[in-house]
Amino acid sequence: MKEAKLISSVQNPQIKKILLLKEKSRERKKTGLFVVEGRREIELAQKGGYEMETLIFCSEILVDPTHKSLLPDLKHQVVQTSKQVYEKIAYRETTEGVLAVMKSKEHAIEKIQFKNQSPLILVAEAPEKPGNVGALLRTADAAAVDAVLIANPKSDLYNPNIIRSSIGCVFTTQIGLGTSEEIIAFLKEKEVNIFCAALTASKNYTYSDFTGSTAIVVGTESTGLSPNWLKNSEQNIIIPMQGEIDSMNVSVSAAILIFEARRQRGL
Amino acid sequence: MKEAKLISSVQNPQIKKILLLKEKSRERKKTGLFVVEGRREIELAQKGGYEMETLIFCSEILVDPTHKSLLPDLKHQVVQTSKQVYEKIAYRETTEGVLAVMKSKEHAIEKIQFKNQSPLILVAEAPEKPGNVGALLRTADAAAVDAVLIANPKSDLYNPNIIRSSIGCVFTTQIGLGTSEEIIAFLKEKEVNIFCAALTASKNYTYSDFTGSTAIVVGTESTGLSPNWLKNSEQNIIIPMQGEIDSMNVSVSAAILIFEARRQRGL
Repeated sequence: MKEAKLISSVQNPQIKKILLLKEKSRERKKTGLFVVEGRREIELAQKGGYEMETLIFCSEILVDPTHKSLLPDLKHQVVQTSKQVYEKIAYRETTEGVLAVMKSKEHAIEKIQFKNQSPLILVAEAPEKPGNVGALLRTADAAAVDAVLIANPKSDLYNPNIIRSSIGCVFTTQIGLGTSEEIIAFLKEKEVNIFCAALTASKNYTYSDFTGSTAIVVGTESTGLSPNWLKNSEQNIIIPMQGEIDSMNVSVSAAILIFEARRQRGL
Repeated sequence: MKEAKLISSVQNPQIKKILLLKEKSRERKKTGLFVVEGRREIELAQKGGYEMETLIFCSEILVDPTHKSLLPDLKHQVVQTSKQVYEKIAYRETTEGVLAVMKSKEHAIEKIQFKNQSPLILVAEAPEKPGNVGALLRTADAAAVDAVLIANPKSDLYNPNIIRSSIGCVFTTQIGLGTSEEIIAFLKEKEVNIFCAALTASKNYTYSDFTGSTAIVVGTESTGLSPNWLKNSEQNIIIPMQGEIDSMNVSVSAAILIFEARRQRGL
C-alpha cells in the first residue's frame, strides 16, 4: 500500500466535496456518490455490493489496525486527514476515524427480485423522518424481509441520518423506491397480497394470514395511508390498542406486524 | 376565573424556577415538582391523578379556547406570559402555548398493585436514553400492561425528554422504580414468571407461554441484562434475527415481545 496523501486543510476541495455530499441530497443525486461513516457501516456497504470511490481515515483516531481489512484491493483512492479535518467531516460523536465515499445504486421498483416463492415485503408510504426509515430498515434486516419498498420517499436513501439510524441496514436489504402507484402496480403484477395498517375497516392483525406472498404497508403516524393504498388493500389490519393513546411509532407497529408474519411462517 | 397575572420578563423568579425544573433532575427531586408541556400531556397527567401546581399559558399562541377545560377548579395558580417568555420556557417546536408545573408521584416498587390475576409487566433495566424510555412507555400504554418497572434508572421519570417522547404515556401506566435486586425480589414474592430477553441459553420467544403472570425483561442494546436478572430468569427468550445485524432497538424488541404476550392472551 502506498502512503496515502494527507489532507490537513478544511479548505481542501476534496473535503469540501465530502461535506457537500453529506449535506445536500441534490449533490448526492448529481454525482451518484454518498458518504458512509464507521467501520461496520462501510463493511456492510461493501458486503451489499456497493463500490467504494474513496476511503478517508484519520490515523490519530483510528487505533485498530484491522482497518486495513477495509482496503482489500485498493481500486479506490485512499486519503488520510488530520484530526481537525476529520472532526469537521465526521458526524458521529463516538467517531471511529474512518469514512468512505461510495457509489449509490439505483432503486427502481422493476429491478426488485424475490428469492422466495412467497415473499414478505415491508412497504412504507412517505415516512416522515430519516430516523423512522432507519428503524424500519433495522427491523427489515432482523426479520430478513425480501424487500423494503418506500413509496413517495421524502428524502433520498443516502441521507446520513438514514444510514446512521439504520446502523448500516440500508445496505443489507433490497430496497425499491417509487410512487405509491408504481408500487401498487408492481405488487398487483407479482400477485402479492396487500395488507394495509389502518384504523378503519380493519381486522385484528393476528387473525390475518401472512403465509402467502405478503406486503405489509404502513403510513405515517400523523395521516396514515393515502386512499390509493386503502382502495387496493386485500385486507386492512390493525393492532388493537388498549391504552389512552391511539397511535404507535411507525417503526414499532411495523416490527409487530412483520414479526407476526415471521411467527406464522415459522421463525 | 380571575384575570391571570401576566409575566413579561424572562428574569421573573417564577420563570427561572420553571427553567430549572426543566433542566435539572436535582431541582425536580428537591421540590417534588416537574413541568409538563402541551395540552394532551397535561390532560393525561390530570387523568393519571397528578396534581397541578401552576398552569402557564400564552394567549398569543394558545388559540383554541377549549384550553379552559384545563382549568376545572382553579385550585392551582394560573399565570399568563408574553410570547417571548413563553418561547423561552417551551421546549416544543410546534408549541401549543400551554404548560404546567405538576407534583410528582412516588414510584416505590412496593406500591405497585395489579388489577389482573395474571398481570403482564414490562421491565427495563437501565434504559440508556430518555427517548427509549418514552418509546417503551408508549408500547406499554398501547398494550395496556399492568405495570412498567424500571430497574436502576439512569434519569428521573420527569425528564422532559421522557415526557415528550412518551407523548404523555408516562402518566397513563403504573410505573415502579427500583434497583434490579428490589424488582427481582418483588416479582418473586408476587410469583410472577420472569422472562429475560437475552442472547444466550434462550428460547424462541414464540414458544414461551406468556399467559400466566409474566414479566418481560429487556436490557440495554449495548450490554444486555445484568447477571442477576439472567440468574433469576424463568426462561431466557430471544427474537431470532436472520439478517446481518444482531441487535434491535430496545423499544422495538420490547414491543414484539409484549404484543406476542397480548396475542397469546387474546388481544
